[in-house]
Amino acid sequence: MKFLCTQENLNSGLALVGHVASKSTSLPILNNILLRTTQGGLELVATNLEVAITTMVRGKTEGEGTVTVQGRLFSEAVALLPHDKVELVVEGTTLTLICGRSRTVVRGMSADDFPVIPQVSGGTKFSLPADELGQAIASVAFTVNPEEGRPEISGVFLGNTEKHLVLVGTDSYRLAERTLSQSVTLPQSEGMIVPLRAAQEVGRVTQGAEGQEVIVVLGDNQVLWQIGDTQIVSRLVAGQYPDYRQIVPKEFSATVVVSREALAQAVRSASLFVRSGINDVRFSFETNAKAVKISSTNSQLGENTTELEATVEGEAAEVVFNYRYLLDGLQTINTKEVQVKVAGPNNPSLFEPKGETGYRYLIMPIRQ
Amino acid sequence: MKFLCTQENLNSGLALVGHVASKSTSLPILNNILLRTTQGGLELVATNLEVAITTMVRGKTEGEGTVTVQGRLFSEAVALLPHDKVELVVEGTTLTLICGRSRTVVRGMSADDFPVIPQVSGGTKFSLPADELGQAIASVAFTVNPEEGRPEISGVFLGNTEKHLVLVGTDSYRLAERTLSQSVTLPQSEGMIVPLRAAQEVGRVTQGAEGQEVIVVLGDNQVLWQIGDTQIVSRLVAGQYPDYRQIVPKEFSATVVVSREALAQAVRSASLFVRSGINDVRFSFETNAKAVKISSTNSQLGENTTELEATVEGEAAEVVFNYRYLLDGLQTINTKEVQVKVAGPNNPSLFEPKGETGYRYLIMPIRQ
Repeated sequence: MKFLCTQENLNSGLALVGHVASKSTSLPILNNILLRTTQGGLELVATNLEVAITTMVRGKTEGEGTVTVQGRLFSEAVALLPHDKVELVVEGTTLTLICGRSRTVVRGMSADDFPVIPQVSGGTKFSLPADELGQAIASVAFTVNPEEGRPEISGVFLGNTEKHLVLVGTDSYRLAERTLSQSVTLPQSEGMIVPLRAAQEVGRVTQGAEGQEVIVVLGDNQVLWQIGDTQIVSRLVAGQYPDYRQIVPKEFSATVVVSREALAQAVRSASLFVRSGINDVRFSFETNAKAVKISSTNSQLGENTTELEATVEGEAAEVVFNYRYLLDGLQTINTKEVQVKVAGPNNPSLFEPKGETGYRYLIMPIRQ
Repeated sequence: MKFLCTQENLNSGLALVGHVASKSTSLPILNNILLRTTQGGLELVATNLEVAITTMVRGKTEGEGTVTVQGRLFSEAVALLPHDKVELVVEGTTLTLICGRSRTVVRGMSADDFPVIPQVSGGTKFSLPADELGQAIASVAFTVNPEEGRPEISGVFLGNTEKHLVLVGTDSYRLAERTLSQSVTLPQSEGMIVPLRAAQEVGRVTQGAEGQEVIVVLGDNQVLWQIGDTQIVSRLVAGQYPDYRQIVPKEFSATVVVSREALAQAVRSASLFVRSGINDVRFSFETNAKAVKISSTNSQLGENTTELEATVEGEAAEVVFNYRYLLDGLQTINTKEVQVKVAGPNNPSLFEPKGETGYRYLIMPIRQ
């Protein structure tokens, strides 16, 4: 097998797939990337058994063949080459990489031992703008914690609401929901749960694909995402996603509008004095006041209080939040002001971008 | 005690001294910064018993006093404040920090428990340009490894050579020497050994002091560095620095001139295939050749060879280096080309900036 291409093309392809090739000690072949020449170019494949990613590098094939090589070593070797033409020669399981006056020999493994990548065919097919999907994943996936031990919330939920697609993430302490502009009706009325790692990979690939479309193919237990020359396949999480809408309060006792950046800065200041393991910061305001107060007290270290200009409509309240959840949400919302809907100290509060629809971030308070 | 200043001034002062306040579990007072109001302003002091640093924050003193507070907490609290006026009030061991509508209370400890900072008086006094000293420290200190277990090379050596000051660092595997432009004669004919941590602090402070002078006061066992309003005091390492000049080869068998960046890149490529724990990269060339070869072989992973355009004057040689030492030196030299003087495979090689004097970096080869 022989293949000719530019260093830039090979490097981009490896950057896309190399991320999935994991450091697996139990199954060393998973550290490898599969290279396969086709008439269209060089196919690169990586998988961690949960997610598989395939991409195509454009170039000139002279003789077909296939091999697998250690992903990280090969990616680093290619990244260090000058921006020049690269020649790949495979003999047996040995890959030789020639670029200018640099010659690299990488000892590989046979492609026969590489896992078979499942094919997703049939099923429902729809497409989404890559930008919007990528941003939506980024704005909900950070709430998901697969270590929580509850499989049904270990992934990103993709569901329907009033004819729009929604993406949801939660770790049961906070929840993020993004409504997409597309009106797609999913065949599974309960929606589907995409494993976190797969969702993150789709998010990563879509971020470099501005202006492109993502084609989604839904199989019975699997989902395929096609972005340009790149395909991501993953299983779906079995189980039913919790009916999260029922935890959103129906009525709120107050709505606060405050500068997002000033609130984040005040929370950071208060966070210096939180009690370790509890991370509690107080968010309080008077009825129809013009200010909110963020504070924290620690009997050993001291205390911090910041008052911020704000618009309060409704009744006085004092709610205690984990400051990390607050900062995560304030980093994801990107409007100048944030709107906080409060339903008392024992119910979840809702954080929304002021003046924008389609996103809401819910935090469960710490009960006092 | 009460003190008024700008957030910027207080923040800069804390950034200077806060670095020295260590995370000491055995002696918690060392985590603290001492604050002392004087007529000139607010004095900030931190020490780790090896190095002490003192700086002055300009501002308005209303009532004198002193306290110590946890360095990291206080520095972070100040850094998060807006660029505005700051008021510090100390009552007992409690410090209150007021800035706009933010109020922070920090519980401190009495200044009585804070270590006494030694005074360095008398002795020799000379001054050096801050820029030059800072760069010189950065270009030799990275070679010093206090973990080596040999106290006499655990610091940066400051000595005389032909009426010029020299700074030297070594870990016995490689050595860096920088000659300063000043003609200063040290009273101790054998020079002095500055603990690494102290040298690093002087380097850090001088980097923000372009165009200023550093006044050095040499005591018997101590040295004081004065940079503007900041003073660094440290002990000197007892013992005699090795006569490092005798390990520099008197004659070389070849001189190679090669692009610094291309050589570093080739070494990085070869480093992917080094044998773990040995880190050996081969540097070889033919007699009076127009190229050098950098290569590495690993029976399990594979191999890499890069040929680079170069000018070789002298006899063929093959020398094996630890690639980390090579990269460290190539990062420190900042000329376009590097000149490598080789004295065979078993003697140290000398790396110098091509076209510049005053710096040399010596690497002991790995014997084959």
